[in-house]
Parts: sequence; structure tokens; C-alpha cells
Amino acid sequence: MTRLEVRAPAGLGEIREGDDLARLIGDLVAPLEAGDILVVTSKIVSKAEGRMREAADREAAITEETVRVVATREHPGGTTRIVENRLGIVAAAAGVDASNTPDGTILLLPLDPDASARALAAALRIRFGVDVGVVISDTLGRPWRIGQTDAAIGAAGLHVTDDLRGGVDAQGRPLTVTQAAVADEIAAAADLVKGKTSGCPVAVVSGLGRLVGPLDLPGARSLVRTGPSDMFARGSREAYEDGYADGLAGSRGRRAPDT
Amino acid sequence: MTRLEVRAPAGLGEIREGDDLARLIGDLVAPLEAGDILVVTSKIVSKAEGRMREAADREAAITEETVRVVATREHPGGTTRIVENRLGIVAAAAGVDASNTPDGTILLLPLDPDASARALAAALRIRFGVDVGVVISDTLGRPWRIGQTDAAIGAAGLHVTDDLRGGVDAQGRPLTVTQAAVADEIAAAADLVKGKTSGCPVAVVSGLGRLVGPLDLPGARSLVRTGPSDMFARGSREAYEDGYADGLAGSRGRRAPDT
Repeated sequence: MTRLEVRAPAGLGEIREGDDLARLIGDLVAPLEAGDILVVTSKIVSKAEGRMREAADREAAITEETVRVVATREHPGGTTRIVENRLGIVAAAAGVDASNTPDGTILLLPLDPDASARALAAALRIRFGVDVGVVISDTLGRPWRIGQTDAAIGAAGLHVTDDLRGGVDAQGRPLTVTQAAVADEIAAAADLVKGKTSGCPVAVVSGLGRLVGPLDLPGARSLVRTGPSDMFARGSREAYEDGYADGLAGSRGRRAPDT
Repeated sequence: MTRLEVRAPAGLGEIREGDDLARLIGDLVAPLEAGDILVVTSKIVSKAEGRMREAADREAAITEETVRVVATREHPGGTTRIVENRLGIVAAAAGVDASNTPDGTILLLPLDPDASARALAAALRIRFGVDVGVVISDTLGRPWRIGQTDAAIGAAGLHVTDDLRGGVDAQGRPLTVTQAAVADEIAAAADLVKGKTSGCPVAVVSGLGRLVGPLDLPGARSLVRTGPSDMFARGSREAYEDGYADGLAGSRGRRAPDT
């Protein structure tokens, strides 16, 4: 029997710029046990790090956070922009957030969520004297499926994938391509108890100590797949229109579709 | 404090065609409590339903399960085919599975995973006299991110999304687009304890009774997003090449990129 528990304690209160998140979260979840993994909603990390901006600057903020536009779509409420942001994450509106923020404000994602996770994990390891992991989560849509799931945008002190590529299945045959994105699955599990409106932006996952390791393990940035192996680097419509324009111009040197 | 527990009991044994899955799983997890959600790996549902085929027929089986090719990519080990299968799920190899199957065999997905989930949930509700939900899970890759996560391909007796579109955030503003795909998050949480190689294809999730409801709630099929709202209906390369060909032909009536 393997077993996993996720708990989301209430009572953190509103986070403000400059707050000592490690101390506040430590007080909330104390004590942590060896092998616990803390999941923290990116929103409160952003607030503590002063990433709040005026809502009037929302479109400019999205543009500033954008590295590359993947797809856009007009709809009655406005334009959806799916973009790759400076963290390599492909997300609607670059991850710029206008929910659960004070009126008239928006929130940018943390500047370096892996670094934020490392700082939190380091402080909590010192305080509780045990090895724990930290995941910083955000809510992401996904192609081909309705709705959103939480995923890891920052991580420290745990293996973000459970890499079975070198392993074998129960019949002894190599598991050539299986690589479970466990940091994303941990963020998803935590979302089930944190919820979106419950005022519980922190969850503690117990029972996954096998995934906890050194603080310098690769962070959530290593979960990002862009570049040549990305088969969906452009929306269908955008890629089609690029191709159409190139075809119409009778261009001989085709533009690569992935760029 | 909200709390969630996931446990994966060992000892189910090898499943064979014709096995009474509801009875075997019921024996394994007994007793279930009201509000428990059972997560069952699709592989054992397929085995019980006789969906095993000869490995020699793998490519033909993928073609048979395919409704529409989304993208293909050649690589040293062969060709990756990302397709929409007859369940509306976009997956590599249409979800046809060659791991953890007897040598020389492959497994197709269950014929109707929502119906399989309903039958299981109905039998378990009668046996234990309480309302429980059932999720049938499969392992899916995703664009833009490394690795795979488990998702719900069948579901019964639970709300597959936690729809906050009508709700408000902690500041009282409407949460216009938030719709948590909780069935997928439940499948992901269960994968963390079931694992891929541990021989624990079943998990019980406790603490989410708020999501459990009538057996005729929409199943996992309702999580599928294809059609006009799918901005990634074709791989970038395929869409570009379609556009290029149309542009080169100087066609005036552009082919829609989504079809």
C-alpha cells in the first residue's frame, strides 16, 4: 500500500510586498516532516515579491512578459493571446493574472520561480531540520482539453520528473518513453484541496519522500519544451497563414514552420 | 483545513479478458466510504474487456483507432503520430499501448471508457451502499511541456470540472474563465501513488465528496475539446504545409486551418 496525503491549512491571510513568505508559511504548516513537499500558489509569491502592477497596464504587461506569440483568437470578450513567456511557459495572457488581486491591479508571475522555490525550500529546511521540497504552481489551460489544471512553474528540492526511461515494465521490457511529470501532478493534486476561491494558497503533500532530493536538482524550467521538439510552436491558423503567404509569394526557400 | 488522501492497495493480480473487474476491485479496496473516488488505470479495463491485439498489428490498430491525424514527426526510432482517436482524445499512437502487456501483444483503449466507468461505479455503489465516483485514467503527453501526466479518459458519478465560471474570487469579482479540470487532476494525483511499474493499477481518493454526484453526470468525453475552439488542431508544420500548398496553387477559397 502506498499512500499520499494533501492538506491545505487555512489562515495565511493576505500577503503583501516584502512579507517574509518562508516565515509565514512555516508558521502555517508547522511542523513539516522529512519528505514533505510544499505547494505554493504563484500568486502569493508574486505578491510578496512586489509583482503587482496597475490594471490599466495589463496589455502592456502581457506584451512585456511575452517572448513569442504562439496563437491569437478573437472572441466576443476580446482577444485571447497564447504566448510563450520569459519563463518558457506557453500560457494565455503570458500568465498575467487579474483574479484575486486588489481592484485595479494585476499580478505578473514571479521573476524567477525556481529561485523563489529554492529560497523557500532552503529556509524551511533550516527551520524544521528536515529535507522538504517546494513547488510553485500556476493554473494553465491545455490544447485539446476543456478547462485548466495546475502545473509547476517553479520547483526546488525534488525530482520534477519520475524518469522511467531507463526502467522496465512489469514484463521486463524497456519503458522507453515514459517520463512522468510528477511536479505537475503534485501541483494538480494540491489544487484539488487548495481550490481557487478558498483562501488556502498553500498545501502540504506527504508520502512522496522518494522524490525529495538536493536543492540544486533541475527546477520547473526543465519541464518546458520549446524549440525543435515542439510540434505546436504556432497555432494551426497562424502556421497555415504563414504557409499561405509564403506559397502565394512563390517563395522557394520555405520558412521553417517552427520558427 | 481541507484534506485529501490517496491510497493504492497492492495485490490486484493480473487481469484477464472476462474478469469481473467490479468484484475484483471491490475486494481490493473494501470498504469504500461515501464520497470516495476510485481511479482505475485504463489498461486493466482494456484487458478485462478483451481489447488485446497482436503486436504485429500495431500500426493497423493505430490507424483503426485514428479519426484524424494532427501531426507526425520522424525521428531515429520511427514516426510519432499524434492523432485524434475515436474518443476525441489527442494522443501519441492514438493511445495504443505496448507497455505492461504480455509479449507480442498490444492494448487498445476501452471501447467506451465513460460507460465502463458507469458500470464500475454502479456496481460499487450497490455493493458498498454509498455514492462513489470512478475515473478511468490514461497517460498523456502534452504540448510545450516535458513528460506525461495522467488524465481522465472515462468518468462516472462525479463532476469532471469544478466550474467556477459563475463564481467570484475573494475580492468578489467574477471568475469568468476558471474551470478546473478536476477529473484530470484526480487522475494525476492517483498516478503519484499508483506509479507505472508498481503493479498498483487502482487508487482510492478520499476527501473530495463534494465532487461526487449522480451516475448520469457528463463523463470524461465532455473534457474533450476539438472543433472550432481548438487552436492546435494541426501541428505547426502540417498547417504551414497546407497553407503553402494552397498559397502556391493561388487558391482563393482558403482551406480552414482547423479542418
